[in-house]
Amino acid sequence: MKLPVSTEWVLHCATTLAQLEPGASASAAQLALHYDLPAAYLTKQLKELVKAGLLAASTGPRGGFRLARPAAEITLLQIVEAVDGRSTPYECREIRQQGRGALPPEECERICVLAEKMADAHRAWRASLADVTLADILAELPEWAPARTRQRLSGTT
Amino acid sequence: MKLPVSTEWVLHCATTLAQLEPGASASAAQLALHYDLPAAYLTKQLKELVKAGLLAASTGPRGGFRLARPAAEITLLQIVEAVDGRSTPYECREIRQQGRGALPPEECERICVLAEKMADAHRAWRASLADVTLADILAELPEWAPARTRQRLSGTT
Repeated sequence: MKLPVSTEWVLHCATTLAQLEPGASASAAQLALHYDLPAAYLTKQLKELVKAGLLAASTGPRGGFRLARPAAEITLLQIVEAVDGRSTPYECREIRQQGRGALPPEECERICVLAEKMADAHRAWRASLADVTLADILAELPEWAPARTRQRLSGTT
Repeated sequence: MKLPVSTEWVLHCATTLAQLEPGASASAAQLALHYDLPAAYLTKQLKELVKAGLLAASTGPRGGFRLARPAAEITLLQIVEAVDGRSTPYECREIRQQGRGALPPEECERICVLAEKMADAHRAWRASLADVTLADILAELPEWAPARTRQRLSGTT
Protein backbone atom coordinates (compact mmCIF):
# COMPACT_ATOMS: atom_id res chain seq x y z
CA MET A 1 0.00 0.00 0.00
CA LYS A 2 1.95 2.95 -1.30
CA LEU A 3 1.12 6.51 -2.24
CA PRO A 4 2.92 7.88 -5.32
CA VAL A 5 6.32 9.40 -4.63
CA SER A 6 4.93 12.66 -6.00
CA THR A 7 2.69 12.93 -2.94
CA GLU A 8 5.61 14.37 -1.00
CA TRP A 9 6.38 16.76 -3.86
CA VAL A 10 2.91 18.25 -4.11
CA LEU A 11 2.48 18.53 -0.35
CA HIS A 12 5.72 20.50 -0.13
CA CYS A 13 5.07 22.58 -3.23
CA ALA A 14 1.57 23.52 -2.05
CA THR A 15 3.03 24.47 1.34
CA THR A 16 5.62 26.58 -0.47
CA LEU A 17 3.01 28.34 -2.60
CA ALA A 18 1.05 29.06 0.59
CA GLN A 19 4.05 31.11 1.76
CA LEU A 20 4.06 33.50 -1.19
CA GLU A 21 2.75 37.05 -1.01
CA PRO A 22 -0.95 37.22 -1.93
CA GLY A 23 -1.40 36.92 -5.69
CA ALA A 24 2.23 35.91 -6.33
CA SER A 25 3.11 32.81 -8.36
CA ALA A 26 6.04 30.44 -8.62
CA SER A 27 6.93 28.56 -11.79
CA ALA A 28 7.37 24.81 -11.97
CA ALA A 29 11.04 25.50 -12.79
CA GLN A 30 11.46 27.51 -9.57
CA LEU A 31 9.76 24.82 -7.51
CA ALA A 32 11.80 22.07 -9.18
CA LEU A 33 15.03 23.94 -8.34
CA HIS A 34 13.82 24.60 -4.82
CA TYR A 35 13.44 20.88 -4.10
CA ASP A 36 15.76 19.42 -6.75
CA LEU A 37 12.93 17.60 -8.51
CA PRO A 38 12.49 16.63 -12.19
CA ALA A 39 10.76 19.69 -13.69
CA ALA A 40 8.69 17.96 -16.37
CA TYR A 41 7.21 15.37 -14.06
CA LEU A 42 6.65 17.95 -11.34
CA THR A 43 4.78 20.15 -13.84
CA LYS A 44 2.49 17.23 -14.63
CA GLN A 45 1.70 16.75 -10.95
CA LEU A 46 1.08 20.46 -10.36
CA LYS A 47 -1.36 20.42 -13.27
CA GLU A 48 -3.29 17.70 -11.45
CA LEU A 49 -3.66 20.13 -8.57
CA VAL A 50 -4.92 22.76 -11.00
CA LYS A 51 -7.48 20.25 -12.33
CA ALA A 52 -8.56 19.57 -8.76
CA GLY A 53 -9.16 23.29 -8.24
CA LEU A 54 -6.43 23.65 -5.62
CA LEU A 55 -3.93 25.64 -7.70
CA ALA A 56 -4.38 28.24 -10.41
CA ALA A 57 -1.95 28.45 -13.32
CA SER A 58 -1.06 31.56 -15.26
CA THR A 59 1.21 32.03 -18.26
CA GLY A 60 3.62 34.80 -19.21
CA PRO A 61 6.98 35.96 -17.83
CA ARG A 62 5.67 36.34 -14.27
CA GLY A 63 3.32 33.36 -14.55
CA GLY A 64 3.32 30.08 -12.75
CA PHE A 65 1.30 28.42 -10.05
CA ARG A 66 -0.44 29.90 -7.04
CA LEU A 67 -3.08 28.68 -4.61
CA ALA A 68 -6.54 28.83 -6.14
CA ARG A 69 -8.09 29.59 -2.77
CA PRO A 70 -7.05 30.52 0.76
CA ALA A 71 -4.66 28.14 2.54
CA ALA A 72 -7.29 27.57 5.22
CA GLU A 73 -9.56 26.08 2.56
CA ILE A 74 -7.10 23.55 1.14
CA THR A 75 -6.76 20.29 3.04
CA LEU A 76 -4.00 17.70 2.89
CA LEU A 77 -6.63 15.18 1.78
CA GLN A 78 -7.46 17.25 -1.28
CA ILE A 79 -3.79 17.51 -2.22
CA VAL A 80 -3.08 13.81 -1.68
CA GLU A 81 -6.16 12.70 -3.60
CA ALA A 82 -5.40 15.07 -6.48
CA VAL A 83 -2.35 12.98 -7.41
CA ASP A 84 -3.53 9.54 -6.23
CA GLY A 85 -7.15 9.73 -7.23
CA ARG A 86 -9.88 8.82 -4.83
CA SER A 87 -9.43 5.07 -5.01
CA THR A 88 -9.82 3.04 -1.84
CA PRO A 89 -6.92 0.79 -0.79
CA TYR A 90 -9.08 -2.27 -0.20
CA GLU A 91 -10.71 -3.81 -3.21
CA CYS A 92 -13.68 -6.09 -2.53
CA ARG A 93 -14.12 -8.47 -5.43
CA GLU A 94 -17.03 -10.23 -3.75
CA ILE A 95 -15.29 -13.55 -3.34
CA ARG A 96 -18.07 -14.34 -0.86
CA GLN A 97 -20.24 -14.90 -3.93
CA GLN A 98 -17.93 -17.38 -5.68
CA GLY A 99 -16.73 -20.96 -5.18
CA ARG A 100 -18.32 -23.79 -3.21
CA GLY A 101 -19.13 -21.45 -0.34
CA ALA A 102 -20.86 -18.85 -2.54
CA LEU A 103 -23.56 -16.97 -0.69
CA PRO A 104 -26.86 -16.46 -2.51
CA PRO A 105 -27.45 -12.95 -3.92
CA GLU A 106 -30.17 -12.20 -1.38
CA GLU A 107 -27.61 -12.50 1.41
CA CYS A 108 -25.28 -10.09 -0.39
CA GLU A 109 -27.54 -7.10 -0.76
CA ARG A 110 -25.73 -5.44 2.12
CA ILE A 111 -21.99 -4.71 1.84
CA CYS A 112 -19.77 -7.51 3.16
CA VAL A 113 -18.95 -6.86 6.81
CA LEU A 114 -15.22 -7.18 6.08
CA ALA A 115 -15.41 -4.62 3.26
CA GLU A 116 -17.37 -2.38 5.60
CA LYS A 117 -14.66 -2.49 8.27
CA MET A 118 -11.99 -1.79 5.65
CA ALA A 119 -14.06 1.18 4.44
CA ASP A 120 -14.37 2.42 8.03
CA ALA A 121 -10.57 2.45 8.28
CA HIS A 122 -10.23 4.36 5.02
CA ARG A 123 -12.78 6.87 6.24
CA ALA A 124 -10.70 7.36 9.39
CA TRP A 125 -7.60 7.99 7.23
CA ARG A 126 -9.45 10.48 5.04
CA ALA A 127 -10.99 12.26 8.04
CA SER A 128 -7.56 12.68 9.59
CA LEU A 129 -6.17 14.34 6.44
CA ALA A 130 -9.34 16.36 5.82
CA ASP A 131 -8.84 17.88 9.23
CA VAL A 132 -5.51 19.53 8.34
CA THR A 133 -5.31 22.57 6.09
CA LEU A 134 -2.29 24.28 4.56
CA ALA A 135 -2.95 27.10 7.01
CA ASP A 136 -2.49 24.62 9.87
CA ILE A 137 0.83 23.51 8.36
CA LEU A 138 2.02 27.11 7.99
CA ALA A 139 1.11 27.77 11.61
CA GLU A 140 3.64 25.11 12.63
CA LEU A 141 6.55 26.66 10.70
CA PRO A 142 8.95 29.15 12.33
CA GLU A 143 7.70 32.69 11.80
CA TRP A 144 10.68 33.58 9.66
CA ALA A 145 10.25 30.61 7.34
CA PRO A 146 7.96 32.22 4.71
CA ALA A 147 10.35 35.13 4.07
CA ARG A 148 13.26 32.72 3.60
CA THR A 149 11.16 30.50 1.34
CA ARG A 150 10.28 33.47 -0.88
CA GLN A 151 13.91 34.59 -1.11
CA ARG A 152 15.18 31.15 -2.00
CA LEU A 153 12.40 30.52 -4.50
CA SER A 154 13.24 33.69 -6.37
CA GLY A 155 16.93 32.83 -6.26
CA THR A 156 17.83 36.09 -4.55
CA THR A 157 19.88 34.45 -1.81
CA MET B 1 -2.61 3.31 -2.91
CA LYS B 2 -3.69 -0.31 -3.14
CA LEU B 3 -3.63 -3.26 -0.80
CA PRO B 4 -2.75 -6.62 -2.39
CA VAL B 5 -5.70 -8.51 -3.87
CA SER B 6 -4.90 -11.30 -1.41
CA THR B 7 -6.03 -9.06 1.44
CA GLU B 8 -9.63 -9.99 0.69
CA TRP B 9 -8.67 -13.67 0.51
CA VAL B 10 -6.99 -13.82 3.89
CA LEU B 11 -9.66 -11.77 5.63
CA HIS B 12 -12.32 -14.19 4.37
CA CYS B 13 -10.24 -17.32 5.01
CA ALA B 14 -9.45 -16.24 8.56
CA THR B 15 -13.15 -15.52 9.13
CA THR B 16 -13.93 -18.98 7.76
CA LEU B 17 -11.39 -20.66 10.04
CA ALA B 18 -12.90 -18.79 12.97
CA GLN B 19 -16.16 -20.64 12.26
CA LEU B 20 -14.69 -24.14 12.64
CA GLU B 21 -15.20 -26.30 15.69
CA PRO B 22 -12.44 -25.78 18.30
CA GLY B 23 -9.27 -27.53 17.21
CA ALA B 24 -10.53 -28.28 13.67
CA SER B 25 -8.49 -27.34 10.59
CA ALA B 26 -9.21 -26.64 6.95
CA SER B 27 -6.71 -27.28 4.17
CA ALA B 28 -5.64 -24.68 1.66
CA ALA B 29 -7.33 -26.85 -1.00
CA GLN B 30 -10.64 -26.70 0.87
CA LEU B 31 -10.38 -22.94 1.31
CA ALA B 32 -9.41 -22.48 -2.33
CA LEU B 33 -12.49 -24.46 -3.44
CA HIS B 34 -14.68 -22.58 -0.98
CA TYR B 35 -13.82 -19.23 -2.56
CA ASP B 36 -12.67 -20.37 -6.02
CA LEU B 37 -9.14 -19.06 -5.50
CA PRO B 38 -5.79 -20.26 -6.91
CA ALA B 39 -4.64 -22.86 -4.37
CA ALA B 40 -0.87 -22.40 -4.68
CA TYR B 41 -0.96 -18.64 -4.26
CA LEU B 42 -3.51 -18.89 -1.49
CA THR B 43 -1.27 -21.36 0.36
CA LYS B 44 1.55 -18.85 0.18
CA GLN B 45 -0.63 -16.16 1.71
CA LEU B 46 -1.89 -18.44 4.47
CA LYS B 47 1.71 -19.25 5.33
CA GLU B 48 2.29 -15.54 5.85
CA LEU B 49 -0.46 -15.63 8.46
CA VAL B 50 1.28 -18.59 10.10
CA LYS B 51 4.53 -16.61 10.16
CA ALA B 52 2.66 -13.74 11.77
CA GLY B 53 1.42 -16.07 14.51
CA LEU B 54 -2.23 -15.75 13.52
CA LEU B 55 -2.71 -19.24 12.08
CA ALA B 56 -1.22 -22.61 12.99
CA ALA B 57 -0.48 -25.20 10.32
CA SER B 58 -0.49 -28.95 10.77
CA THR B 59 0.33 -31.72 8.34
CA GLY B 60 -1.20 -35.15 7.78
CA PRO B 61 -4.54 -36.32 6.34
CA ARG B 62 -6.61 -34.17 8.72
CA GLY B 63 -4.11 -31.34 8.73
CA GLY B 64 -4.42 -27.82 7.46
CA PHE B 65 -4.79 -24.38 8.92
CA ARG B 66 -6.55 -23.24 12.06
CA LEU B 67 -6.50 -20.09 14.17
CA ALA B 68 -3.43 -19.96 16.37
CA ARG B 69 -5.34 -18.13 19.08
CA PRO B 70 -8.92 -17.17 19.97
CA ALA B 71 -10.86 -15.14 17.40
CA ALA B 72 -11.21 -12.36 19.95
CA GLU B 73 -7.43 -11.98 19.94
CA ILE B 74 -6.93 -11.65 16.20
CA THR B 75 -7.56 -8.22 14.71
CA LEU B 76 -8.18 -7.23 11.11
CA LEU B 77 -5.04 -5.08 11.31
CA GLN B 78 -2.89 -8.12 12.11
CA ILE B 79 -4.35 -10.04 9.16
CA VAL B 80 -3.98 -7.15 6.71
CA GLU B 81 -0.42 -6.39 7.78
CA ALA B 82 0.56 -10.06 7.59
CA VAL B 83 0.20 -9.97 3.79
CA ASP B 84 1.05 -6.32 3.12
CA GLY B 85 3.83 -5.86 5.62
CA ARG B 86 3.85 -2.93 7.99
CA SER B 87 4.95 -0.35 5.48
CA THR B 88 3.41 3.11 5.67
CA PRO B 89 1.68 4.46 2.55
CA TYR B 90 3.47 7.82 2.64
CA GLU B 91 7.15 7.80 2.02
CA CYS B 92 9.08 10.87 3.21
CA ARG B 93 12.29 11.16 1.23
CA GLU B 94 13.24 14.39 3.00
CA ILE B 95 13.01 16.59 -0.06
CA ARG B 96 12.98 19.48 2.42
CA GLN B 97 16.73 18.86 2.74
CA GLN B 98 17.52 19.04 -0.96
CA GLY B 99 17.63 21.66 -3.71
CA ARG B 100 17.97 25.43 -3.48
CA GLY B 101 15.51 25.53 -0.60
CA ALA B 102 17.32 22.86 1.43
CA LEU B 103 16.84 23.32 5.16
CA PRO B 104 19.94 22.96 7.35
CA PRO B 105 20.18 19.67 9.29
CA GLU B 106 19.60 21.41 12.62
CA GLU B 107 16.12 22.41 11.43
CA CYS B 108 15.37 18.82 10.43
CA GLU B 109 15.96 17.06 13.70
CA ARG B 110 12.23 16.86 14.21
CA ILE B 111 10.08 14.96 11.70
CA CYS B 112 8.71 17.12 8.88
CA VAL B 113 5.28 18.43 9.83
CA LEU B 114 3.81 17.06 6.59
CA ALA B 115 5.22 13.59 7.24
CA GLU B 116 3.84 13.84 10.76
CA LYS B 117 0.31 14.57 9.53
CA MET B 118 0.54 11.70 7.04
CA ALA B 119 1.68 9.43 9.87
CA ASP B 120 -1.27 10.61 12.00
CA ALA B 121 -3.63 9.52 9.22
CA HIS B 122 -1.97 6.12 8.97
CA ARG B 123 -2.24 5.74 12.72
CA ALA B 124 -5.98 6.46 12.46
CA TRP B 125 -6.31 3.76 9.77
CA ARG B 126 -4.39 1.24 11.85
CA ALA B 127 -6.36 2.08 15.01
CA SER B 128 -9.62 1.52 13.17
CA LEU B 129 -8.55 -1.97 12.02
CA ALA B 130 -6.92 -2.83 15.34
CA ASP B 131 -10.27 -2.21 16.95
CA VAL B 132 -12.03 -5.05 15.08
CA THR B 133 -11.40 -8.70 15.91
CA LEU B 134 -12.50 -11.84 14.10
CA ALA B 135 -14.89 -12.39 17.01
CA ASP B 136 -16.52 -9.02 16.19
CA ILE B 137 -16.92 -10.12 12.56
CA LEU B 138 -18.47 -13.45 13.57
CA ALA B 139 -20.91 -11.61 15.84
CA GLU B 140 -22.26 -9.84 12.76
CA LEU B 141 -22.95 -13.04 10.80
CA PRO B 142 -26.34 -14.79 10.94
CA GLU B 143 -26.35 -17.38 13.71
CA TRP B 144 -26.72 -20.25 11.25
CA ALA B 145 -23.75 -19.13 9.13
CA PRO B 146 -20.98 -21.11 10.91
CA ALA B 147 -22.79 -24.45 10.53
CA ARG B 148 -23.32 -23.83 6.83
CA THR B 149 -19.70 -22.74 6.40
CA ARG B 150 -18.47 -25.96 8.01
CA GLN B 151 -20.72 -28.12 5.83
CA ARG B 152 -19.67 -26.42 2.62
CA LEU B 153 -15.99 -26.44 3.55
CA SER B 154 -16.05 -30.17 4.10
CA GLY B 155 -17.97 -30.68 0.85
CA THR B 156 -20.79 -32.50 2.59
CA THR B 157 -23.56 -30.42 1.07
